[in-house]
Amino acid sequence: MSTRLDQATVDLLGVLAYGELTAFERLASDARLAPSISDKHALASMAAAEYDHYRRLYDHMLAESIDPEQAMAPFVGPLDAFHDSTPPNDWLEGIIKAYVGDGLATDFYREVAAFVTDAATRGLILETLADTGQASFAVAKVREATKADPAVAGRLALWARRLVGEALIQAQRVAVERDALTELLVGGSGDLAGIARLLTRLTDSHTERMASLGLQA
Amino acid sequence: MSTRLDQATVDLLGVLAYGELTAFERLASDARLAPSISDKHALASMAAAEYDHYRRLYDHMLAESIDPEQAMAPFVGPLDAFHDSTPPNDWLEGIIKAYVGDGLATDFYREVAAFVTDAATRGLILETLADTGQASFAVAKVREATKADPAVAGRLALWARRLVGEALIQAQRVAVERDALTELLVGGSGDLAGIARLLTRLTDSHTERMASLGLQA
Repeated sequence: MSTRLDQATVDLLGVLAYGELTAFERLASDARLAPSISDKHALASMAAAEYDHYRRLYDHMLAESIDPEQAMAPFVGPLDAFHDSTPPNDWLEGIIKAYVGDGLATDFYREVAAFVTDAATRGLILETLADTGQASFAVAKVREATKADPAVAGRLALWARRLVGEALIQAQRVAVERDALTELLVGGSGDLAGIARLLTRLTDSHTERMASLGLQA
Repeated sequence: MSTRLDQATVDLLGVLAYGELTAFERLASDARLAPSISDKHALASMAAAEYDHYRRLYDHMLAESIDPEQAMAPFVGPLDAFHDSTPPNDWLEGIIKAYVGDGLATDFYREVAAFVTDAATRGLILETLADTGQASFAVAKVREATKADPAVAGRLALWARRLVGEALIQAQRVAVERDALTELLVGGSGDLAGIARLLTRLTDSHTERMASLGLQA
């Protein structure tokens, strides 16, 4: 198959699609930890929304003559490694992972997507990065738990720091291996000062998300 | 909330909805065991179809003034017990569970659904019992595996027998606890001879499914 889209865009579609597919699996698995039917329902609904995003990216790749499996393949290692190294120990850790982890990833992908030249692809990517309901659900559940037992807050803050650390390790691995994608980001940002500003924006949003949960970043 | 539907129908909607919700979770979790991206894709798609069935049953209950959580609650214990007692050890066992386990459950529910008096509910239930693609996928994958290593067939046949055994234990538990549902089935079947014929039909279909996989029932 030959596609009119450049390698960086193909890479971005691939990493996003595999990211949504694994997010779907993990959210649906974490639904098993849910303490009530309504919590299970909420998590299953978010997982189904992730599948829907995955499906739209997958279908877009087919329509653009991209082999979705080939596009996803380079990202299986890093994404599986991230998830394998961060299995949630309980329901709250699963929620933090869905909100804080996906939030950071989403912010990052949105920054990269801005540099995609194909308008249809850029539009679709931005749509699939929309919040699937994690935010308000996570905030409510975590605040409920820390109100009932303030000691929980310290443990969850540590957990969030670990998630960010593991995510950075894998992101670095991708950056080293996928030249076109890295070039898109570096070229789009302009220079090192541009990259620094991007990292500041990501850090600020992460700190805000943690604050909304009532946790220290 | 007060509904125009009788208790047996409410029970049937509840057990079906919770059954689809747990099937969704398990299929999505099993997708993690998939040996390739395309297998993962196939399992995730089936899981998403189960979620869609769950959602339609859930919405139907709301429209019929039934509290879905209350309707599902009596079946959480038996269905969770079934899944907890039958965690697949590998990818093939997961596929057998999805095909043979869901197949038996589906046949059974279809028999019960025939006795539901409300036509709209009966129609919806029969639609949600449609195959979500497990059949042809499972047959292809299991035949592939037993061709590569004939010894696998014996282990998988034993696994399927265990699934049926655990399912019967939980079904019996439900029958004892949910009078209205049991009454619907017994009353609908007419008499003990009717029940015996129903069991024969279920057994025959199960044997056919096993044969299509190339396994002994």
